[in-house]
Order: sequence, then C-alpha cells, then structure tokens
Amino acid sequence: MFKLSDKLEFHNKRNDILTVGELLIDMISDDYDDHFECNSYKKFFGGSPSNIGMNVKRLGINSLVASAVGEDGLGTFLIGYLRNAGINTGCVQQVDYSTSMVVVSKSQLTPVPIFYRGADYHLAYTSKLEEALLNSKIVHFSCWPISMEPVRQTIEKVLDVAAENKILVCFDPNYHPMIWQKGEDGVEYVKSIISKVDIIKPSEDDAERLFGKDTYENQVQKFLQLGAKLVIMTLGKDGAIVSNGIETLKLDTLATEVVDTTGAGDAFWSGFYAAVVKGYSIRQALSLGFAVSAYKLKYTGAVVNLPTLEVIKEMYGLKEE
Amino acid sequence: MFKLSDKLEFHNKRNDILTVGELLIDMISDDYDDHFECNSYKKFFGGSPSNIGMNVKRLGINSLVASAVGEDGLGTFLIGYLRNAGINTGCVQQVDYSTSMVVVSKSQLTPVPIFYRGADYHLAYTSKLEEALLNSKIVHFSCWPISMEPVRQTIEKVLDVAAENKILVCFDPNYHPMIWQKGEDGVEYVKSIISKVDIIKPSEDDAERLFGKDTYENQVQKFLQLGAKLVIMTLGKDGAIVSNGIETLKLDTLATEVVDTTGAGDAFWSGFYAAVVKGYSIRQALSLGFAVSAYKLKYTGAVVNLPTLEVIKEMYGLKEE
Repeated sequence: MFKLSDKLEFHNKRNDILTVGELLIDMISDDYDDHFECNSYKKFFGGSPSNIGMNVKRLGINSLVASAVGEDGLGTFLIGYLRNAGINTGCVQQVDYSTSMVVVSKSQLTPVPIFYRGADYHLAYTSKLEEALLNSKIVHFSCWPISMEPVRQTIEKVLDVAAENKILVCFDPNYHPMIWQKGEDGVEYVKSIISKVDIIKPSEDDAERLFGKDTYENQVQKFLQLGAKLVIMTLGKDGAIVSNGIETLKLDTLATEVVDTTGAGDAFWSGFYAAVVKGYSIRQALSLGFAVSAYKLKYTGAVVNLPTLEVIKEMYGLKEE
Repeated sequence: MFKLSDKLEFHNKRNDILTVGELLIDMISDDYDDHFECNSYKKFFGGSPSNIGMNVKRLGINSLVASAVGEDGLGTFLIGYLRNAGINTGCVQQVDYSTSMVVVSKSQLTPVPIFYRGADYHLAYTSKLEEALLNSKIVHFSCWPISMEPVRQTIEKVLDVAAENKILVCFDPNYHPMIWQKGEDGVEYVKSIISKVDIIKPSEDDAERLFGKDTYENQVQKFLQLGAKLVIMTLGKDGAIVSNGIETLKLDTLATEVVDTTGAGDAFWSGFYAAVVKGYSIRQALSLGFAVSAYKLKYTGAVVNLPTLEVIKEMYGLKEE
C-alpha cells in the first residue's frame, strides 16, 4: 500500500534505477508521406528504457540500462551514443542478431511503424544483469520485453528477484498487438503480469487496448484488481487520475506549450523516479513528474536537455508539502 | 549435357523466365562512413530476382517475379515500383511479416550490411506460383530463398516441379553465412542442391566460400561433380571460365568502362537468358550476357536503362555464329 503522502523507503543501493528493455534505431522519413514514397530517412537513437536512463541522470539520480543490441555497426553506434550521454553500458549486451529497428514514414494521418525486431528480444538474464538489479532501488520495464521470447523469461526472472529483494517494480503497460509475437494474444499475458507490479502508468489508450472502452475510474479499478499497488492513468491534456485503491487523486497537466509529444510519458516517469529517490512524497513526485513532462513538451525530440529536478521544481512553482 | 554450340529448346510457354526469391528495401547511407555515424539514409528498391525480371523485359523477353513482401507501406512501395516497371506482380505475395530490408553504411573499407529478414522468407508455394512455373521456360533462384525455412521448402517444391516439367533451372550460388539461418552450416545444403540445377553461375568468391581456395579449373570441376550441367564461373575483370564437363571455354570481359559494379552479375544473367530464349546458341548467349554486363557497368545503379538485346549485340560487335 502506497499512501500518497508517503515517502518511499529504499535500501541504500549503489544505483537508483535500472531500466530493462528495447534499445533500437528509429529510422524516420524526412518528409510527411502516407505512402512510403519518401526515399530519405534519418536514423535516431531510440528506446524508452534508455530515454528514461538519460533523463533521470540529467535530473540528478543514477541509472543503468539493460538492453541487447546486435554485434553490428548500428549496435556499436547505440552503445557509443549512451556512453557519450554518460550512461554506464555494462548491462548492454551485444548478441548475434541484427540491432532492432523501427521504420516510420511520417504521416499527416496515422504514422504506421514497421517493426524490425532482432537483438532487442534476445536480452539474457546474466549475472551482470542480476548484480545491477540487486544494486538498484527501482526496476522499470514496458511491454516491449515481455512481448517476445526469450527476453520475456529475463523479465520474469527480474520480477522474481525484485520481489525477493524488495526492489520497487514499475511497469509501463504500453501494449500494442503490432509488437507482440505472432500467434499469441498479448492482452492476457499483460494482465497476468500486473500482480507482480508495484506502480503502473497506463495511458487511456493502453487501458482501452487491454480492457476495452470504459470510464477512467473503472479502468483504474481494473488495474488495481489485477494487483497493481499504485495506478497512474494518464489522460493526455486532461492530466491524470491516480489511485492506490483507497485514495484517488486527479492531477492537472502542467503543460502550457506543446511542441512535440514524443517522449512525454518517459519524461513523466523520469521526473517521478528522480523525485521518489530524492525523498519527495508520492503526491509531490507525481507533480514533479508532470512538471518534467511539461518541460519536455516544449521541445522537439524524445530526450531533451533537461535541467535538474530542483530547477524544474522551481520553474513550475511546486511547493514543499 | 549442354553443348556450347547448342541452342536450347523450350516448349512453347506464355512466360519466358520466372525468378523466385527476395524482394526488399536497400537502406543505404548517404555518406561514406565506416562506423555507422552517418544519420542520413536513402531507401532503394532491391532484390536480384526483380532486377533480373526488369532487365530481361527491357532486353525483350517476358518475366514473372515470385517474392513475398510485408502487408506494410514498404511492401506496397515495392509492388508499386515493379508495376511501374511493367512487371506482372501476380506472384508477389503480401504476408504478415515486415518487408525485408538490408541496411548498408557505405564504406571506404568493406561495407558490412545488416540484414533484416522478415517477409521475404515466408514466400509460400501456392497454386498461383505453380501456374507461373508451369507456364515458364526458365526458373531462376539464388541462395537467398534457400537460406531459411519456410521459403526453402517452396524452392524444393519448385525444383521438383521444374524437373518433372523440363523447365530449365538456373542457380546463382551467392552463398554467404550472414544470410543463413542460425545454427546451420549452409555450405552443405548449397552443395546438396546443385544436383537439381542445370546452369550455375558462381563467382570466384562464391566458389571459395563453398569449397575453400583452389584453382579456377578445380572449382569448376567441383560444381560439375555435384551435378550442375553447365558452370559459368565469373572471374571479375578476368572474364569467365565456362564448362559443361567436356568443353571448356575462357571468355574475356567486354567491359571497357567500370563506373559501378552493382548488379553486374544480374545483368549477365539477364543478357544470357534473353539470348537463349531468343534462340542464340549457348556460346553466343554467354557473349551476349557479358555484353549486357559491360553495358550495365558503365552506369550507376543495380538496374539501368538497358536497350534491347539486339541493340547491345550491335554495340559490342557480336557476330552471328
């Protein structure tokens, strides 16, 4: 049970947060084009676990990233990028599969990504990964690494070890059938894993894909019933609804200017994590998460040059409780 | 046994050549860069079966292409490209896997491609494919579609039906371990399939990857011993050595100007096919193959705007026998 006024207690660990999951290339068309006629593409560093890892470092806490890339030029590029951002890449594995890639043709309608998954789902549970986990206060994952075998087994092992060692488990249930392994309905699997999760942050769309259409309040209840201890359901420009099953809180967005929504969810997670690690209450960490997200929304790109958490707190006029 | 002075006899068929295999996107960096630091890429239409299909059409014979692409924007782009080139795409299947892609960082050293295989190896043996095969004089394939299951089964079925129906079987043994399915040594499989092949066109490198280093003459003998009826071993700027086991012929290249070697092998095949279909002898078809290849070498791109076979024959001063 997480009371909203509580500060989370962590054991003294060398690392603050370990993010586990996809590290990949985003190959994005230069022009808007609904029919893949555009021939020019730019490659970008991609993958939410690393984005969170880089964000929280800027906000002032420590991070480790566990991902798998290929033994190829694109994998080496991704590792170099992380190192340049000051991230320890000791848990980034290089495996004998092509570095995963997502190709996107920018669209005025709905951009439809094409997924090329290779190395990312071959992340193994190694002694190095276990060591990183045991030395971390928080472990974070999303639907990517549970969507395919064998990395799903790695996550299951991570969840078992996290539970035994009282490591906070946070899950982004960004379910989408397109990333799921063929022949399996991912919805049931995603639901089954929620009992092992402390904090979950679904969007409205995530909830609808998992449970069908329903009111916000009912959707939040469903996540709680499946065993999540704290549900943060984001509602886009309408902010978020948060519940631990006893207390329910409605939060407004702090965004004033929306230039690019890419990475806004990861920015929220990042601010929230930095805040709980720095000893803020859950209630205040939620506000700080929204402040970081609002800051990110003003700039283009999945990862922007965030100031420290304290500077953002001041910018958004957030008070001590 | 193919005597070099023979003209090949074909049954009267609606189609001349059916090429079976990969259809894919080549994603190539704009700049030369040995470390995948370049962020700008261009996408290109790719896949040797289609390149041969488009070439032979320009040279003046008919072609069909059997390939599989994804049910995605890139697959639709590839099909549209073929249609624009006047190719019948009735045998191009759209399957529930991402359109295959090869990412290449142009290099001053050795460019190392990264393979993203999806749809291409899911080409199924369908009644439509069988109909195309039965209505064709020649069927052509390379190592791509035998390198992975399930498309390998499609090729095996194609080879059985071709044998039963006396369709000429031609094979490009462009073996490379990088495209092969994991855990299998492709060399033995490639060798095993040669007994089902009429005409094979290895390069020196292909031969070395299959048999190790040896003299040209010995390499040619090995292909013959494995059951190929005619071996055309290309030697780059040194032309080619051709043998049916009784007669051996050394051919010089006709290239005078080399601007881009991409697609030169496919151009050779294309000229050779157009010539045998048009009733030239094997010996003359070999020269016409080299003439088309020499023409292609003067221009940039895998597929260039070839004139008809007759025009090329005149350009290169090839005489009637």
